[in-house]
Amino acid sequence: MGQNLILNMNDHGFVVCAFNRTVSKVDDFLANEAKGTKVVGAHSLEEMVSKLKKPRRIILLVKAGQAVDDFIDKLVPLLDTGDIIIDGGNSEYRDTTRRCRDLKAKGILFVGSGVSGGEEGARYGPSLMPGGDKEAWPHIKTIFQGIAAKVGTGEPCCDWVGGEGAGHFVKMVHNGIEYGDMQLICEAYHLMKEVLGMGHDEMAKAFEEWNKTELDSFLIEITANILKFQDSDGKHLLPKIRDSAGQKGTGKWTAISALEYGVPVTLIGEAVFARCLSSLKDERIQASKKLKGPQKIQFEGDKKAFLEDIRKALYASKIISYAQGFMLLRQAATEFGWTLNYGGIALMWRGGCIIRSVFLGKIKDAFDRNPQLQNLLLDDFFKSAVENCQGSWRRAVSTGVQVGIPMPCFTTALSFYDGYRHEMLPANLIQAQRDYFGAHTYELLAKPGQYIHTNWTGHGGSVSSSSYNA
Amino acid sequence: MGQNLILNMNDHGFVVCAFNRTVSKVDDFLANEAKGTKVVGAHSLEEMVSKLKKPRRIILLVKAGQAVDDFIDKLVPLLDTGDIIIDGGNSEYRDTTRRCRDLKAKGILFVGSGVSGGEEGARYGPSLMPGGDKEAWPHIKTIFQGIAAKVGTGEPCCDWVGGEGAGHFVKMVHNGIEYGDMQLICEAYHLMKEVLGMGHDEMAKAFEEWNKTELDSFLIEITANILKFQDSDGKHLLPKIRDSAGQKGTGKWTAISALEYGVPVTLIGEAVFARCLSSLKDERIQASKKLKGPQKIQFEGDKKAFLEDIRKALYASKIISYAQGFMLLRQAATEFGWTLNYGGIALMWRGGCIIRSVFLGKIKDAFDRNPQLQNLLLDDFFKSAVENCQGSWRRAVSTGVQVGIPMPCFTTALSFYDGYRHEMLPANLIQAQRDYFGAHTYELLAKPGQYIHTNWTGHGGSVSSSSYNA
Repeated sequence: MGQNLILNMNDHGFVVCAFNRTVSKVDDFLANEAKGTKVVGAHSLEEMVSKLKKPRRIILLVKAGQAVDDFIDKLVPLLDTGDIIIDGGNSEYRDTTRRCRDLKAKGILFVGSGVSGGEEGARYGPSLMPGGDKEAWPHIKTIFQGIAAKVGTGEPCCDWVGGEGAGHFVKMVHNGIEYGDMQLICEAYHLMKEVLGMGHDEMAKAFEEWNKTELDSFLIEITANILKFQDSDGKHLLPKIRDSAGQKGTGKWTAISALEYGVPVTLIGEAVFARCLSSLKDERIQASKKLKGPQKIQFEGDKKAFLEDIRKALYASKIISYAQGFMLLRQAATEFGWTLNYGGIALMWRGGCIIRSVFLGKIKDAFDRNPQLQNLLLDDFFKSAVENCQGSWRRAVSTGVQVGIPMPCFTTALSFYDGYRHEMLPANLIQAQRDYFGAHTYELLAKPGQYIHTNWTGHGGSVSSSSYNA
Repeated sequence: MGQNLILNMNDHGFVVCAFNRTVSKVDDFLANEAKGTKVVGAHSLEEMVSKLKKPRRIILLVKAGQAVDDFIDKLVPLLDTGDIIIDGGNSEYRDTTRRCRDLKAKGILFVGSGVSGGEEGARYGPSLMPGGDKEAWPHIKTIFQGIAAKVGTGEPCCDWVGGEGAGHFVKMVHNGIEYGDMQLICEAYHLMKEVLGMGHDEMAKAFEEWNKTELDSFLIEITANILKFQDSDGKHLLPKIRDSAGQKGTGKWTAISALEYGVPVTLIGEAVFARCLSSLKDERIQASKKLKGPQKIQFEGDKKAFLEDIRKALYASKIISYAQGFMLLRQAATEFGWTLNYGGIALMWRGGCIIRSVFLGKIKDAFDRNPQLQNLLLDDFFKSAVENCQGSWRRAVSTGVQVGIPMPCFTTALSFYDGYRHEMLPANLIQAQRDYFGAHTYELLAKPGQYIHTNWTGHGGSVSSSSYNA
């Protein structure tokens, strides 16, 4: 990642000084990948700092956590007021907020920037999501926007996100959405394989076709390539790969933030839990020998039509996932007093990063139409898109339910859609239950804001719970 | 809560000294609820402490959080080595672990006890889940097991849970399961109302009938009472109640712990998110005017048969929820080095608390049959129960999906069941994607433990991601 970012900066005419704790890596890099470039190396932090012009701009690409603080502690004594430290790792947004405040007190400008795009992106144009001390932005803007991915008429997939941890928060949500997109593709793949009995090349073709539709995206493109990829023995590689998904934490953090701030980001939550379940491989093998599914039903419908149902189920679910993700961003902005430019964020994700897609251009358009848009589903384009998909979506889900295919994200997305569009949910029963057993009180539809306790049982007192907190 | 616990202790022959920061509350209590009892009062902490025999046993029932620490700080200087402080509030288990360690260093024995049962339970027999410093247990066992709810042949719904925060962790999971149970009942109620068009008395009857089946439980019982409850105007009260569910945090904490420890406790997660969505009342009203559902379909099936389908969907989903809850307890035991008695926990929940049910007796039986049982679903009783329900479960869910009823918990439970019993999940595609864009490596089914990177694109290098952490 670090090496590729350096080469990318070099391509754009910026002279970079490379340093690594393992000094030999610096020499190897200069002797190989960086051979014939303007990249210079340093064998110590002191040497690196001495080679930079002021204000110094130093970007760290180290493992999130303690390593970042250690590096900062080593750097600070070598720097001058106004110098800039940029953390390009996957740091937790709270850590970034803390570092931003600590360093501001020391006269150092700190920037926490999300960087997405994997090795390819880092090399040829990543999506960059910088946030932190805005005074730093004028000094790094040309570099950041220079190396970032470009879309449309050359718009860079990089802009200033917001204060303190905003950049890393947005990157975290990006990763959560990435978890969701990947799980949605898995559920489509599972349905194709198990319900339609499609072969790998046939599925690869389907995804290639889908990539010419509203689903046009990097993840759909690579899924097609993965499906058709053959191992050295000429057999498809995918079915040989162990079905235990790893994770590095940012998806989990997104789901935890959603719970902390009370935003129903159900699809990312299910995507994270789906990875947890997948990793219980041994237990699943045991369970698979014991637990029966439904009677094997042969699919008798129109295969071509059902494949389109799956595609629309994926598209509709994806819209729900992004709607939920932006709900979380909106809530975070309120929690932390950030001013977030939602259209700008969609544009940052439009290219360069793992979730890059034509779809994100449509989200940008929606926020251009209405910067105050409260929810993507309330935008006419997305409203019509979901409504156009819902017949297929419901068919795909109910078929999968009958056949016994797990679809945690397809189903939670549909439940969210059906819940969100219900003026009246059954939660009045929850409130009645809580008042019945805990005297927690409830509101009447007719009198919101007034909290009432009913003596449901005729005994147990009419005093409400608050007064019990002795 | 506090007052009722005191009266309960008094009923069992224990002399209790009551204290409250608001001294007048003590006098009111002695002059009213506690009139003619052996309960004594104190107008200051010093007075209260002076009236207790050693080792002093002091139970706090104050709001979780800072208030507990403040109270402890005021108490400690007044206490002697070996005295016991019990926190009977809904404290976060990490706080309990911290307090347990701090007080041990000061020679004070700390116990964090979950207390469930609401006002009724506190008064006539709660479920008690004490954990912390085990040296305290012999001194409080008779009181705790004396006032606790009794089941079967007088077995108390209280036993020692485990070290440090174990008692509050188990209470937290209890509350999470409570969220799940309540949401499952809401989804059944929603289907009865919208799909079968049942009236409130008709639904009350259905729940009364269900309460004579495997679903026999406190929450089903009060749901029947709530459904038939009439307001002063002779109309049913439930439909007048505002459908925005409140929460106090313990359900949220359970879901967060599940994410932190990587356990797929999906049903509680969805139940918490369902409350979050319910609280977005104004936004839902707006959305309900804009977003279309499916064509209104009149239910043409056999209503009696579908009602039974709903009941079995609820029962099967409930089994999944408890299986997930015990998965979380098992993981926590590993994380924190606790020895948990799973059958004992089921017995503690069997009576007194909000989730009390005949069902929990079946869970106790399962752990009696096999104390090492890895998952409830692998127990023959529950395996058969779910298999017997799954036809109904799938019909109820696919009908709700077609009609447009949100069923986040019915559906996530089914996805979990179908995922758990799949030896092969589509997560192999996630691993391939992660290796494709991030060189994260993957394992082969044939060679677990060996991490392989494939150069999928033919360019971008064959070096795996770890070495990129420059």
